[in-house]
Amino acid sequence: MDTARPTGVSAAPADSAATPLYLRLAGGIERAIASGAMRPGDRLPSVRQLSQQHDVSLTTALQAYRCLENRGLVQARPKSGYFVAPRTYTLPEPQIDLSIAGASFVSMDHVLHEFLQMVDHPLAAPSFNAAPARTLLPEAKLQHLLAGVNRRHPEYASKYQMAGSTALRQEIARRAVTSGVHLHPDEIVITNGGMEAVYLALKSVASPGDTIVLESPTYFHLLQSIESLGMKVLEIPSHPRDGISLEALDFATQIPGAVKACVLLPNFPNPMGSLMPVAHKRRLVRMMAERRITLIESDIYGELYFGEQRPPVLKSFETDGDVILCSAFTKTVAPGYRIGWVAPGRHFLKTQALKVRTSVACPLLQQEVLAQFIRDGGYDHHLRKLRAALKTQATQMADAVARHFPPGCRLSRPQGGLMLWIELPRHVDSREVFALARREHIGVAPGAAFSCGRRFDHYIRLQYGEPWSPRMEAALQKLGQIVTRLAQERPESGVERGMPLGEVLA
Amino acid sequence: MDTARPTGVSAAPADSAATPLYLRLAGGIERAIASGAMRPGDRLPSVRQLSQQHDVSLTTALQAYRCLENRGLVQARPKSGYFVAPRTYTLPEPQIDLSIAGASFVSMDHVLHEFLQMVDHPLAAPSFNAAPARTLLPEAKLQHLLAGVNRRHPEYASKYQMAGSTALRQEIARRAVTSGVHLHPDEIVITNGGMEAVYLALKSVASPGDTIVLESPTYFHLLQSIESLGMKVLEIPSHPRDGISLEALDFATQIPGAVKACVLLPNFPNPMGSLMPVAHKRRLVRMMAERRITLIESDIYGELYFGEQRPPVLKSFETDGDVILCSAFTKTVAPGYRIGWVAPGRHFLKTQALKVRTSVACPLLQQEVLAQFIRDGGYDHHLRKLRAALKTQATQMADAVARHFPPGCRLSRPQGGLMLWIELPRHVDSREVFALARREHIGVAPGAAFSCGRRFDHYIRLQYGEPWSPRMEAALQKLGQIVTRLAQERPESGVERGMPLGEVLA
Repeated sequence: MDTARPTGVSAAPADSAATPLYLRLAGGIERAIASGAMRPGDRLPSVRQLSQQHDVSLTTALQAYRCLENRGLVQARPKSGYFVAPRTYTLPEPQIDLSIAGASFVSMDHVLHEFLQMVDHPLAAPSFNAAPARTLLPEAKLQHLLAGVNRRHPEYASKYQMAGSTALRQEIARRAVTSGVHLHPDEIVITNGGMEAVYLALKSVASPGDTIVLESPTYFHLLQSIESLGMKVLEIPSHPRDGISLEALDFATQIPGAVKACVLLPNFPNPMGSLMPVAHKRRLVRMMAERRITLIESDIYGELYFGEQRPPVLKSFETDGDVILCSAFTKTVAPGYRIGWVAPGRHFLKTQALKVRTSVACPLLQQEVLAQFIRDGGYDHHLRKLRAALKTQATQMADAVARHFPPGCRLSRPQGGLMLWIELPRHVDSREVFALARREHIGVAPGAAFSCGRRFDHYIRLQYGEPWSPRMEAALQKLGQIVTRLAQERPESGVERGMPLGEVLA
Repeated sequence: MDTARPTGVSAAPADSAATPLYLRLAGGIERAIASGAMRPGDRLPSVRQLSQQHDVSLTTALQAYRCLENRGLVQARPKSGYFVAPRTYTLPEPQIDLSIAGASFVSMDHVLHEFLQMVDHPLAAPSFNAAPARTLLPEAKLQHLLAGVNRRHPEYASKYQMAGSTALRQEIARRAVTSGVHLHPDEIVITNGGMEAVYLALKSVASPGDTIVLESPTYFHLLQSIESLGMKVLEIPSHPRDGISLEALDFATQIPGAVKACVLLPNFPNPMGSLMPVAHKRRLVRMMAERRITLIESDIYGELYFGEQRPPVLKSFETDGDVILCSAFTKTVAPGYRIGWVAPGRHFLKTQALKVRTSVACPLLQQEVLAQFIRDGGYDHHLRKLRAALKTQATQMADAVARHFPPGCRLSRPQGGLMLWIELPRHVDSREVFALARREHIGVAPGAAFSCGRRFDHYIRLQYGEPWSPRMEAALQKLGQIVTRLAQERPESGVERGMPLGEVLA
């Protein structure tokens, strides 16, 4: 069995004099691909170039490429030569379990406390925090804009606006058109990030004891937020590719008045990265309207699509103002600005009043900087670059998982966003994976954090916001080893399933 | 009856040739005092100088001073000459009504909606917004510090810290000593202003349906916040000088378990500006501890004392960690930064977790600027100047109220803070005063906004955060005319008592 190679970058067998020449050559190319030095779609040297570069025969060079082709790592294209293969998922997709548990109050602290302690961990790679790496964010541009706004507006230290900056609300309204909705700036309330937006939306339409339906798995902050509001959660199974199961949702919302609101991310939710097809979106909005269930959608990952087009939001299909659209700039531009927004439709006055009595207002400075960045600071250019980088990084991390994780694992195919969702063999406790990976400074979110139930105890979430690097490759290799070892052990030899995370970590 | 003189500065009878010379001279000095050109304590010209300046006899000059002395506007000090008199309140203090209504759920929107629409009103003088004027705040200094922080830390666009900036928490802990408490930086959670601090504290210790005791009157954002949390409010009468009545509080909290928490501002609360004597503070903390009622104190005005010493916070008298101290920099340094904090004592973990699930974190940029300003940016110097200005402005506004308001009015004697609390004749509807004053761009808060009951329907709040000016004098004169007219009318001739504010305004 492999021992730890904390600084190694190679996924191939170690070279030795006994290894045939073509295999050593192939190993070198494999390492270059694994390290990200060569990326999917990159053209490889011709057979002739390869033989000259490495001083080997043409046959040996060809053998090396054929070997890599057999392993799915490179592709021969007629008359063009060899290319690094596009990602080939060698792991199947996670399964969907369509059973539904009853509505229940949330209680997650035992799972989450230790995890949340880690979110700021500065050394973890991949990081625990689901956001693009700093190098992918427009820090220098924002710094420049902020210096200008600060110079022109010393009064932003003293002033605030309850509804939020007019300029920013105008830009949000203007941009919303690309997601299919027409908003007036006065229909928008600026919030402290996307979390406060959803929190205010929930508080606007539901009361303690009410039942809220959610896609499952979903992100822990949402579950915690509902817990803190004293509402009940009814988790609806969600497909890793299409999002929430409309059949299960249909079934769960038959009884009039039993469910007050439905919260979901139609585009690339945390942790699955799924994308609801347009037909599903339309059907969902109609179903909820018929049943008088308020739809609260968060679109914080909506701009991070890997496909050709910006997917529409649910609100673009509504007819009666009962869809509340929440979003934020924390996943795309400036996590540190903590700026989000909500367009509450016919719940506007209630939501605006709640914002005032929760936290009054948000600082104007960063709002004005964002407004300028969106208006004429290269927002679209930035988003294009960010999307391309994330798509590549998703491929690279998925490849690494496929290479390093043991048989029996399953892997999501994100359509956008920032995360991979991995199903491990059923007897592997993801909280143990979390605890062991943490010691190696590898950021893993345990699946238990994404549900009130135990359905995802053998899942983990990884985030691919950072550019690929030898360190990431090594981390994924190490993580694969941890999972492999736990998969080989029986539960009784290690930590028992169902133990509180605190004890697992002790 | 006087007609409106919107740009006039004179409170004295108009001069005319028929007016004796000494009265005309006195009138000029009275106008200079009223306009703020001469302030309480200022030395006046000697009798000889006055006679020379105005080319009048020594007798006439002396007569003018004697006349002003008779009216309480100037003081003769033996061997020193004449001085502008310290403020002499000619109105009695408001009364305290010790009756207590039962606990009730809050419902205030009918009163508050229109008022809150006005808070941002840029033209109002005095403004609707209870904060020091921009000219009294260190905008230029903060602008300079912010430029430096922005230059050194572009990463603050991307990064955030859930607990808040370490540097700021260190400064808060260091400063807390002056208010009598020893805090560790890790016991503090940074919040979006003082409002979120109290909101999180309430949510940490109480649940929907629980009863919270408050001093009455109290600020409407607090009442609204409790409303939004689904908790009940039990209002305890508060004395305009000493704060909450301990006898009434004692009586109201006899039944074990009936009250979950007590929220109050021991130092200069909005709207009364009272100051709890130290003996009261000690007794209050002991009483609440014995009855296992969590004390939540907001000290946002604590630095704005008019006396010799920084008054202690309630938390300085606690023994068991059950006093939650909330504060903010929104009333003293930078309203626009929206930065507050909470030291939740033994409720720390709960409060910290709630912060994360409500709004995750606050921007680091402004936190670092504040930390620097407190550490070595002249925070103390700024506070000294601000306190002196507010004390003078309180005097000037109180004088103007005493001069312009009709008999039967009563006026608080604020010990610090930003507001005057004025009791009008009982049949005057303060919502009508609000509506009429609004048309003149005069910021008045109707008393109804400071209670769930009707106890303060004939009170108004004014704020003296702006430096005195002819415009302020004219506004107070106009306001006095409005109140005088309403006091002379019978209720049936105007708006009926108890009408919703919306109808009053319509």
